[in-house]
Amino acid sequence: MKNPEILVGILTGSPNDLPVVAKVRDTLTELGIASEIVVASAHRTPDKVLAYLERAHREDVQVLIGCAGMAAHLAGVIAGHTRLPVIGLPLSGGVMSGLDALLSTVQMPPGVPVATVAVDGARNAAMLAARILALKFPEINAALEAAAKKERARYEQSADEALSKLRANK
Amino acid sequence: MKNPEILVGILTGSPNDLPVVAKVRDTLTELGIASEIVVASAHRTPDKVLAYLERAHREDVQVLIGCAGMAAHLAGVIAGHTRLPVIGLPLSGGVMSGLDALLSTVQMPPGVPVATVAVDGARNAAMLAARILALKFPEINAALEAAAKKERARYEQSADEALSKLRANK
Amino acid sequence: MKNPEILVGILTGSPNDLPVVAKVRDTLTELGIASEIVVASAHRTPDKVLAYLERAHREDVQVLIGCAGMAAHLAGVIAGHTRLPVIGLPLSGGVMSGLDALLSTVQMPPGVPVATVAVDGARNAAMLAARILALKFPEINAALEAAAKKERARYEQSADEALSKLRANK
Amino acid sequence: MKNPEILVGILTGSPNDLPVVAKVRDTLTELGIASEIVVASAHRTPDKVLAYLERAHREDVQVLIGCAGMAAHLAGVIAGHTRLPVIGLPLSGGVMSGLDALLSTVQMPPGVPVATVAVDGARNAAMLAARILALKFPEINAALEAAAKKERARYEQSADEALSKLRANK
Amino acid sequence: MKNPEILVGILTGSPNDLPVVAKVRDTLTELGIASEIVVASAHRTPDKVLAYLERAHREDVQVLIGCAGMAAHLAGVIAGHTRLPVIGLPLSGGVMSGLDALLSTVQMPPGVPVATVAVDGARNAAMLAARILALKFPEINAALEAAAKKERARYEQSADEALSKLRANK
Amino acid sequence: MKNPEILVGILTGSPNDLPVVAKVRDTLTELGIASEIVVASAHRTPDKVLAYLERAHREDVQVLIGCAGMAAHLAGVIAGHTRLPVIGLPLSGGVMSGLDALLSTVQMPPGVPVATVAVDGARNAAMLAARILALKFPEINAALEAAAKKERARYEQSADEALSKLRANK
Amino acid sequence: MKNPEILVGILTGSPNDLPVVAKVRDTLTELGIASEIVVASAHRTPDKVLAYLERAHREDVQVLIGCAGMAAHLAGVIAGHTRLPVIGLPLSGGVMSGLDALLSTVQMPPGVPVATVAVDGARNAAMLAARILALKFPEINAALEAAAKKERARYEQSADEALSKLRANK
Amino acid sequence: MKNPEILVGILTGSPNDLPVVAKVRDTLTELGIASEIVVASAHRTPDKVLAYLERAHREDVQVLIGCAGMAAHLAGVIAGHTRLPVIGLPLSGGVMSGLDALLSTVQMPPGVPVATVAVDGARNAAMLAARILALKFPEINAALEAAAKKERARYEQSADEALSKLRANK
Repeated sequence: MKNPEILVGILTGSPNDLPVVAKVRDTLTELGIASEIVVASAHRTPDKVLAYLERAHREDVQVLIGCAGMAAHLAGVIAGHTRLPVIGLPLSGGVMSGLDALLSTVQMPPGVPVATVAVDGARNAAMLAARILALKFPEINAALEAAAKKERARYEQSADEALSKLRANK
Repeated sequence: MKNPEILVGILTGSPNDLPVVAKVRDTLTELGIASEIVVASAHRTPDKVLAYLERAHREDVQVLIGCAGMAAHLAGVIAGHTRLPVIGLPLSGGVMSGLDALLSTVQMPPGVPVATVAVDGARNAAMLAARILALKFPEINAALEAAAKKERARYEQSADEALSKLRANK
Repeated sequence: MKNPEILVGILTGSPNDLPVVAKVRDTLTELGIASEIVVASAHRTPDKVLAYLERAHREDVQVLIGCAGMAAHLAGVIAGHTRLPVIGLPLSGGVMSGLDALLSTVQMPPGVPVATVAVDGARNAAMLAARILALKFPEINAALEAAAKKERARYEQSADEALSKLRANK
Repeated sequence: MKNPEILVGILTGSPNDLPVVAKVRDTLTELGIASEIVVASAHRTPDKVLAYLERAHREDVQVLIGCAGMAAHLAGVIAGHTRLPVIGLPLSGGVMSGLDALLSTVQMPPGVPVATVAVDGARNAAMLAARILALKFPEINAALEAAAKKERARYEQSADEALSKLRANK
Repeated sequence: MKNPEILVGILTGSPNDLPVVAKVRDTLTELGIASEIVVASAHRTPDKVLAYLERAHREDVQVLIGCAGMAAHLAGVIAGHTRLPVIGLPLSGGVMSGLDALLSTVQMPPGVPVATVAVDGARNAAMLAARILALKFPEINAALEAAAKKERARYEQSADEALSKLRANK
Repeated sequence: MKNPEILVGILTGSPNDLPVVAKVRDTLTELGIASEIVVASAHRTPDKVLAYLERAHREDVQVLIGCAGMAAHLAGVIAGHTRLPVIGLPLSGGVMSGLDALLSTVQMPPGVPVATVAVDGARNAAMLAARILALKFPEINAALEAAAKKERARYEQSADEALSKLRANK
Repeated sequence: MKNPEILVGILTGSPNDLPVVAKVRDTLTELGIASEIVVASAHRTPDKVLAYLERAHREDVQVLIGCAGMAAHLAGVIAGHTRLPVIGLPLSGGVMSGLDALLSTVQMPPGVPVATVAVDGARNAAMLAARILALKFPEINAALEAAAKKERARYEQSADEALSKLRANK
Repeated sequence: MKNPEILVGILTGSPNDLPVVAKVRDTLTELGIASEIVVASAHRTPDKVLAYLERAHREDVQVLIGCAGMAAHLAGVIAGHTRLPVIGLPLSGGVMSGLDALLSTVQMPPGVPVATVAVDGARNAAMLAARILALKFPEINAALEAAAKKERARYEQSADEALSKLRANK
C-alpha cells in the first residue's frame, strides 16, 4: 500500500548503525520531510535492497540515502539500480576510522554517481537531501531557511556561552 | 541580463583545471542541460565567487558544482553562501593524488553539506547534477534514460571488442 | 549451452581492465584450468552480473574472481550472491594507487568474505584459485608443482643472469 | 598420532591474539568443521611453524589460516612452504589500526598468494575457509546454507528490534 | 570602538573547539601579547568572518590565527581576505585524527599562504605569532627570551624529576 | 662583511632542490625583498647551518626559510636555534609524494614552531615571508598589493583565454 | 669523570616519554649491557644534545638510541653528529598514531642512516643495540642467546596457558 | 669453501631489484668492505634463504641486509633465524610507493628487530652496515671518515656549481 508522504528512503547495512542513522531521520523530521529507515545490506540481504528500491520507485520516493561502514558498497549498489539521486553516508565503525568507508563510497566509476558526505556526517546527509528536495518542493526551502536561522541562533548562543565561560576562567 | 536556460553553474578555482572541468559541461550538454563555467577562486578571487552566486540566485540556477584541487575549499565556501545543492569535484593536480582535495571537499561540518564525487570524477559530477534536476524536470529523466542506454550499448560494444581482441591474441 | 570444463569465472567491471585481467586467465591456462572472462559491472550492469552468476551456478563453475578498481564493489557483490569462494583482485587504475580498490575489496562485513590478493596481483588471483581447486582436483596439484618448479628454474636463471651482468659491470 | 578430522589449521603469532583467533575456531565449529589452533611465530619460533606445516601436510589438513598483527609475515611465510590455500587474517593490535598488518599480509609477490580478509575479520576468515572446503565436502555446503539462514534470521530480528526501539524513542 | 592593544585575532569555527583555542590565547597572554577570540565559521557564518576581518584591519590587528577541524577552510578563507600573516591551527576533532584538517589547512594554492602548525599545536600557533610580532615589537623578543628560559628550566626540572623517579623504581 | 639588505635567508638541504628553491628567491625578488640562498643540511653539514644562523643573526636577517624533502628536519633544526620566524617548505622529492616531508616539517613539539606551507609550495613560502615582513616594512605591503593586482590580472586573463579556447573547441 | 661501562646512550626528547624509554634501558640491563638515559631535545635543548654526544664519544659509548615522537628529528640530528651506529625509536604520542614519527625517523637522506625500529618498539631498540654490540663483545652474544631461550620458554608457556584457557572456555 | 673477507651478506628477494641492490654493494666496496649479493626470496625460495644463513654463520659474515618490496618479509625472516644485526631496505617497486614495504619491514614484533632505513635508501643500508662494523674493525672508521670528507667535498662542490648556475640564470 502506497505511502504518499515518504520523500526520502534511508537504507543502512547494519542494525548496529541505527543510532547514527536515526540522526539522518531526525534531521529530516526537523525539516518537515517524511522519511523511512530500511535495514538492508548490499552483501547480506541484496534481495531486500532490490525489493525496497522497487517499492521506493513505485511510491515516488525522491531521494535515497545509503549508510554503511568498512567496504561500504550500499550507496553504490543503490545508485546502480536507480536514477534517483543517491546520497552516501560513510560510517566509521571498524578499525580504519572510516577511511575505508569513505573511499568505498565516493570513488564510484563514471555513470553511477554517489553524493558523498563526511564520515559519520549524518546531519549533512539529511541537509543535502533537503537542499535537493527544495528545488521541487518550495516549502522545504522555507524549512531550510528557518532551520538555518535556528541553527545560527544556537551557534551564536553556544559561542557566547563558551566565550563567557572562558572569560570567567581566565 | 538574465539567461533563462542555465540550470547548472560550474565554478573552478584555476584556469589550469578547465580541461577536466570542460568534461562536466560536455556531459551536461549531452543530457540537454544548459550550464556555464565560471573561473573564480575561493582564495584568490572570493569577491568573484560571491558575485557569481548572487547572479546565479537571481537567474534561477538550480545546482552548483565547485571544482578544485589541493586545499579544495571552493565547493565548501559556495555551500556556505547558498541553499542550492552544491556538488564538489575534488581534482588530483598536485603531489597528493587528490587525497588532500578529497578530504578538503567532503569533510564538511554539520549544516553545510557538499555532495562529493570521486577525485577527477568529472562525468559523475554532471551525472549527479542531472539526477538531482530530473526530480523537477522530467525531460531530464528521459535524457538520463537515453544516455544510460547509449552508455550501456557503448559498454557492451567495447567489452565485445576487447574480448574479441583478447581471443585473437590467445 | 553448458560448457562442462570451465572451473573459474573471471568477472571484470571495465573493458579497460582486460589487459590485466587477461593475465589471470593466462596463468590459469598455464595450469591447465579452463576459465572464462565476463565483462560485467556491479554498478553499470548489475543484471549482467546476476545473470552470469546464475549460469555459473548451473554450469558448476567452482571459483569466482572479481576484478575492479576505485570503489571496487564487484567481488563483494558477487560474494553476496553465491556461496562459492570469491577472490577479489583490486586494480590500481585511478589516482589513489589502488588503496581505494584494496580497502573496498578486503574490508567486507562478517558473513560475506572476499579472498583478496595484492593490488594488480593478477598472477596471484589465478594461483589462489588453483590452490583452492587443487583440494578437489588432484591433477591441479601436479600442475601447481610443475609450475612451481618451472617458476623456480626461471627465478634462478634470471637471478644468475642478473648477477652475472652485475659482476660484468663492476 | 594422526587426527583425521582436522580440516583447518589456524596459526597465530602471539598468545595475546588468542581471543580474536578463538572466534575463527568458534565459527568453524559452528559450521561443523574441525580445526586446531597453533601458536607459532614466523619470527620468534620459525621452526615451530615449519614443524606444524609438516604435520599438517601429513595429517591432510586442507586449509591454513595465518593470523598476525604489525609486520604480519605469518600467512606469507606459511604460503611459501605449502601449496594448500592460505588465508591471512591481519590483526589491529599496535598503533597503526592494522594498516601495517593488512599491507604486510595482502601485498604478496607473484606465485605465493595469501587470501586476505578484513582487519580483525575473524568470522570471515572462517567463512572463507568453509566456502573453500565446501567445494570438496558437500556437507559443508549444507552447513553454510543453514548458517546463512540462521544469520539472516538473526539479522532480520536484530533489525526489527532496533527499528522498534527507534520508533519507541521517536 | 577601537581597542588599541589587540595584536592577534584568533578565529575558531566551532564553540566546541574553545578549550583548545583558549591555550592559544593563554600562551599569548603569558608573552604579554593581547589577543581576542572570535567564534566565526567559514561555512556557517561567513559574514561574521568578513565583518571581523574588516574590524581587525581597522583596529590594526597584526596577526590572525584560524583554528578549525575536518575540512578546515577557516585559515585559508581568512588568508584570501587579508594581507596580514595568517596562521592555521588544524584540530583533530572528528574521526580522521586531524589529517583532514592538516591537509585542508596547509595545501593552499600559490598566492594565498597559510602558516600551518602541528595538529592541535595550540601553543605553537601562539609562539609563531609571537616570533612574527617580535620583528616589529622588540619587547616581545624579550618576553620570548624569558619564556624560553622559563620553559627550559621547567623542561630540565621535569626531566630531573622523571629521571629520579625512574632511578628510584629501578 | 655585512650585507644590510638581506631580509630573508633561504636554506636548502640538497643542491638538487635548487630549481624549486630558486622560485622562493624569484618571488621575493619580484616583491623587492633581498634574499640569499644557502645550501646547508641539518644532517650532512650541521656546522654550516649553525655558522649561517650566527651570521644571519649578526646581519639582521628577519625571516628564515628551510626547504627539505624526506625526513625534512632542516626547518625544525633552524627553529631550535633562533627566535626569528622560520618557514618550512616541504619538498616532494622521494617516493612518498612529500607526505614524509610535510609531517616531518609541521608536527613540531610545543615551543619550537615552524610555519609550514604546502608541499612544493615555493611561491607561498616567499609570500608568507613577505606578509610577515610587511608588518614592519610598509613598502613591502605596497609591493604585495601591486603583486596581488598583477596576479589577479594574470589570473583573469588566463581564465578568459582558457574559456575562449574552450568555447572555440565546443 | 669517565664511566667505563656505559655502552649505550639513550636520548629522549621529552620527559613524558620516559616510561616507554625506560623499557629500552630495562631490556639492556636484562642483557647485562650498561646504559644511560639522557633527556635532551633536538629542538628545545640542541646544545644539551651536542654536549652529551661529545661526552659519549670521549667515554667510548658504542651505540646511541634516539627516541622521539611527532616530527621526530632527534635520532637524525644525532646521526649527523656522530659516526657511531644510531638507532631511532619513533613514539606514538600525538594524534597521528606515530606515522609522523616513523617517517621523520626513517626517511633519512643518503650518508646519514638511522636504524629505525617499530613505533613504540622499545624492546627492539634495545635488542638491536645488543645484536650490534655482540659483534664486538662476545659475552653479549651469550646473553642474547640466554634471553632468547628465556623469551622462548615464556612464549611457549603463555601460549600453553592461553590455549588451556581457551579449551576450558570452549 | 670459506671466503674469509665477506663481512656483509646482502639478500634480495627479486632479480628485478638488483640495480638498486647493487648500490648497497658499491657503497660497501667504496668503504673497503667486502660483501656478497644473494638472490633468495622469503616466499619463493625460503630454503635458499636458510641455506645462505647457515653458510653466512659458518663463514663469519657480520651483518645481513635484506632488500624487498611490497609485503617485504625478507629482512624479518632473516632476523628470526640469526642473532646478527639485520638491516632492512624497503623497496618502492609496486603501486604503493613503498609504504607497504616500509611497514612490512619496520613493524617487527618484540625480540626480532630489523634496523630499517629509508624506502630505496640503498646507500644508507650500506652506511649503516659500515657504522656497525666500525665498532669492531677500526679501519672501517677511517674509511667512513675519508668517505664523509669526500662526500662533504662533493656536496660543497655541487652546491657551489648549482648556486653559480642559479646566479648566471638570474
